[in-house]
Amino acid sequence: MILYDYPSGPNPRRVRIYLAEKGLHVPTETVDILARRNRQPDFLEKNPTGGIPVLELDDGSCISESVAICRYFEELHPDPPLFGTGAKEKAIVDMWLRRVELNLMVPIGMVWVHGHPLTAKLIQQIPEAAAQNRVRTAMGYKLLNDQLARHAFIAGDTYTVADAVALATVDFGAGLVGVPPDAALTHLDRWHQAVTARPSAKA
Amino acid sequence: MILYDYPSGPNPRRVRIYLAEKGLHVPTETVDILARRNRQPDFLEKNPTGGIPVLELDDGSCISESVAICRYFEELHPDPPLFGTGAKEKAIVDMWLRRVELNLMVPIGMVWVHGHPLTAKLIQQIPEAAAQNRVRTAMGYKLLNDQLARHAFIAGDTYTVADAVALATVDFGAGLVGVPPDAALTHLDRWHQAVTARPSAKA
Repeated sequence: MILYDYPSGPNPRRVRIYLAEKGLHVPTETVDILARRNRQPDFLEKNPTGGIPVLELDDGSCISESVAICRYFEELHPDPPLFGTGAKEKAIVDMWLRRVELNLMVPIGMVWVHGHPLTAKLIQQIPEAAAQNRVRTAMGYKLLNDQLARHAFIAGDTYTVADAVALATVDFGAGLVGVPPDAALTHLDRWHQAVTARPSAKA
Repeated sequence: MILYDYPSGPNPRRVRIYLAEKGLHVPTETVDILARRNRQPDFLEKNPTGGIPVLELDDGSCISESVAICRYFEELHPDPPLFGTGAKEKAIVDMWLRRVELNLMVPIGMVWVHGHPLTAKLIQQIPEAAAQNRVRTAMGYKLLNDQLARHAFIAGDTYTVADAVALATVDFGAGLVGVPPDAALTHLDRWHQAVTARPSAKA
């Protein structure tokens, strides 16, 4: 088993944080995405979208999409449960995973591809799209802040995979992309300090 | 239990197709999204993103995000399994769910909001963003076609929730949004005919 990884990518970091919370150790191999190693035919055989991370199993089959990789490990190692227990709790964790992805990661990704000098060679950038997605990113942060006003963690009162995904997303937005949460979002800030203090955040 | 629904929306249709495949019947209530009923405070209490569908449980709690709602029913009614069985198969179904959402539904949604007359009042449309996302939509269709060249269904050789989600997505793209798959994608077409012939497609 090999986890194809890249240190500064937000999506592989989701998996590393998750694995650290579970206490699991998986051999990794860094894929040089700056050299477009993930766009070579042999890598596209593993993941046709070219995305990182990818988990290659011992039978040669590959699982991509960060959350799907975490779900694979959750099935094999259910404790501690990070995808919830019981129908309702599992659905709520999944709901928050999708909210973080669609309402926060997608707009942050759009600011990244349309507004950052590092991605200018990869796409015909549309500055107006970057501006619009800065506003959507702020709305995504507010959605999390409103939830965290009532709960300790993203999907409720215990730490779940939604926190791992949200931490990697917020740190990517606030860091490389340059769209940090507004300082007035105090509940999000309190959560961010709490999850950053966990050893898994170093992953 | 009530499922808040809207007949022509692609996301509620995912759930209706899924429920039909499972043979489950859930009472529904249509939310008039054209009248912005889903943006009123009482609805935003149920789902702060304002999206449809929402499943309200008998205890008053609400689950939104179409796939999370399906996952709730899957936990309660595991047969027939539509989210896969075993760690690897479950991960592969989840991987394809996310590929359909991120690589096809997201760009179709962008063409919809940036390129369709019906959405012109809701957002400052960017025609260049619509054009770019037509290209991404075509890439999303190709991703599915390549998979369907090797497998009967989206996530492998049996029908899963990924097929329900993909059917609702393709029909929305090809219909209201006006971005149908290229006719050269014959595997996608073969799959589309097969899943459309199932009784669940009428949901």
